[in-house]
Amino acid sequence: MNIDGIPTRSLRAYPEQRAIAIIDQTRLPHALHWLRVATLEEAGHAIRSMQVRGAPLIGATAAYGLALALDFEASDRRLAEAAALLRSTRPTAVNLHWALARMEGALAPLPADARCAAAWAEAAAIADEDVVQNKAIGRHGLALWRDLIVADGQVLNVMTHCNAGWLATVDHGTALAPVYAAHDAGIPVHVWVSETRPRNQGLLTAWELEQHGIPHTLIADNAAGLLMRNGRVDAVIVGADRIAANGDVANKVGTYLKALAAADNGIPFYVAAPCSTIDFACADGAHIPIEERDGDELRLLHGVDERGVPSALRQLPAGEDVANPAFDVTPGWLVRAIVSERGACAASREGLLALYPEEARA
Amino acid sequence: MNIDGIPTRSLRAYPEQRAIAIIDQTRLPHALHWLRVATLEEAGHAIRSMQVRGAPLIGATAAYGLALALDFEASDRRLAEAAALLRSTRPTAVNLHWALARMEGALAPLPADARCAAAWAEAAAIADEDVVQNKAIGRHGLALWRDLIVADGQVLNVMTHCNAGWLATVDHGTALAPVYAAHDAGIPVHVWVSETRPRNQGLLTAWELEQHGIPHTLIADNAAGLLMRNGRVDAVIVGADRIAANGDVANKVGTYLKALAAADNGIPFYVAAPCSTIDFACADGAHIPIEERDGDELRLLHGVDERGVPSALRQLPAGEDVANPAFDVTPGWLVRAIVSERGACAASREGLLALYPEEARA
Repeated sequence: MNIDGIPTRSLRAYPEQRAIAIIDQTRLPHALHWLRVATLEEAGHAIRSMQVRGAPLIGATAAYGLALALDFEASDRRLAEAAALLRSTRPTAVNLHWALARMEGALAPLPADARCAAAWAEAAAIADEDVVQNKAIGRHGLALWRDLIVADGQVLNVMTHCNAGWLATVDHGTALAPVYAAHDAGIPVHVWVSETRPRNQGLLTAWELEQHGIPHTLIADNAAGLLMRNGRVDAVIVGADRIAANGDVANKVGTYLKALAAADNGIPFYVAAPCSTIDFACADGAHIPIEERDGDELRLLHGVDERGVPSALRQLPAGEDVANPAFDVTPGWLVRAIVSERGACAASREGLLALYPEEARA
Repeated sequence: MNIDGIPTRSLRAYPEQRAIAIIDQTRLPHALHWLRVATLEEAGHAIRSMQVRGAPLIGATAAYGLALALDFEASDRRLAEAAALLRSTRPTAVNLHWALARMEGALAPLPADARCAAAWAEAAAIADEDVVQNKAIGRHGLALWRDLIVADGQVLNVMTHCNAGWLATVDHGTALAPVYAAHDAGIPVHVWVSETRPRNQGLLTAWELEQHGIPHTLIADNAAGLLMRNGRVDAVIVGADRIAANGDVANKVGTYLKALAAADNGIPFYVAAPCSTIDFACADGAHIPIEERDGDELRLLHGVDERGVPSALRQLPAGEDVANPAFDVTPGWLVRAIVSERGACAASREGLLALYPEEARA
């Protein structure tokens, strides 16, 4: 996409320099700062520390991380070790595993001296496909929403959780792709953006929407149910970190609560994700590993001081006991449809196989 | 109650000094600071700014605020104006209206020169009754929980939202009263404390439980559903700001989401509140006014800096659009039981009238 002529591609590759550039998302919304990533270790750190986040972007960054790792040495051992390091950065988003498996599958058969160039090409293909797929998600999602518009000029009130916009992908976003598509099609849309404690990725969504001039309102995560009960929400759409073969969805913690409230109020709840997020090898949500992150994400608060300088405050004593799971599982029966690059389907084994028949096994 | 011999009464009256003392809850958990309140205006400010909060404590503070108002003048007009000022401080908690109506009912028939002394006495009666009622809630709640204990030594995992402990009442608390009763009875109990954005009253609950040596774990509000799905929660208990005649419950925003998750996982969801919280004149939850608070509660973050000094950071640009409802409504069908000073009942008109038959009208 373009904002005022500036591309929104969140990851830029410079193969001739053996480097990529990413936006340091830990500094948003206060500062837009591009980071140069030139080594395997820097790529691993960027993913682990959430300088890059969002399942599709994690996958693409890991692919480039592998390319960076093969610069001086591209032996079988180097390839396996680099993939293992990247795979260990975060457990829940399956796009990471998917991208690394695809890279290894493409590179392993090649002679070592051909691997580095091939790695850059394969990573670029992954990134480019992500853009094309997300654009298709926007188209398919918008087609679903058109049915929700009953009157000319009606503002479509969409609620989302976390950030599944262009910052979370290579471009376009997943959950936000239909929002951008609606906006581009001249359909008035307003987005309820939930804060998404404890990492507050809702602020990234608010920042993205602000750049595009799309009306939006930030709310505490707790307010989602009231707004739905009061008829203020027409549809809920979120991204996903892993979709199990039965349609259960792992996504940012708090997603399940929004899905329950949507179901209780008859509001359609959509999950938008490209094929790289679907894990046909994972039977159901109970088999998806849920990342437990550092309790300091709750104990400390991050913002900017009155001079605009990034700063932290203590919210809780250091010893205070904290549990901090980063994701939860929404059972497929709460999901009205999964929207992928191929279209929409029921969040069930049958639905997913209808869209991806090549995944059917005996 | 007592912690290490120190009473936990959160509001102390000094009629001879024409003053009360309250804990400034905006400074907890970082500092325990008592504030002297000696005028009507100071009482109004304490309630509006949430130096005191919690439906029962708001009621008791308003009662004393009226007593403070009558010190120099106790005319009909002064009484009505003072009550109106206090009534306007916060809209949702009905205990405020209940306490003021009770005060006015007791004082209006008296000659003006007898009103001030009578006001102090009536406010003290309201405060003392709150303590007795909450203690009874603890007893009745514990009786319900005993059925959940299937094995000796089993740790009872209770989840709560916001703070409905002794800080939110004159003493004992409502939702936390059964927790304290269980702890005192030697039943091992662990409490999941949700942060309760945007005002983070979960930190008050964590502080209270820490003082009492009761094991607890702080979580982001978003994590509640995952913990329930994973079998980590035996019961959920919350307080209330207003219970409608049909059993619908207004409580801190986010309560409804927890009630949905409890229902989806077969976990009993209890609401603990004294009779002063039940509004028989309010037909259902749709008639409960929901307070919309300042968006800066979301835009700014409050904590302490590395020296322990209270400080604020900016999380969002000043112009960022924010919606900040402070309460939501949980329909009665999601509530397993309402626990009041008279015992437990179904969250329905029939249930409430069985407990309060005197409220039955033709």
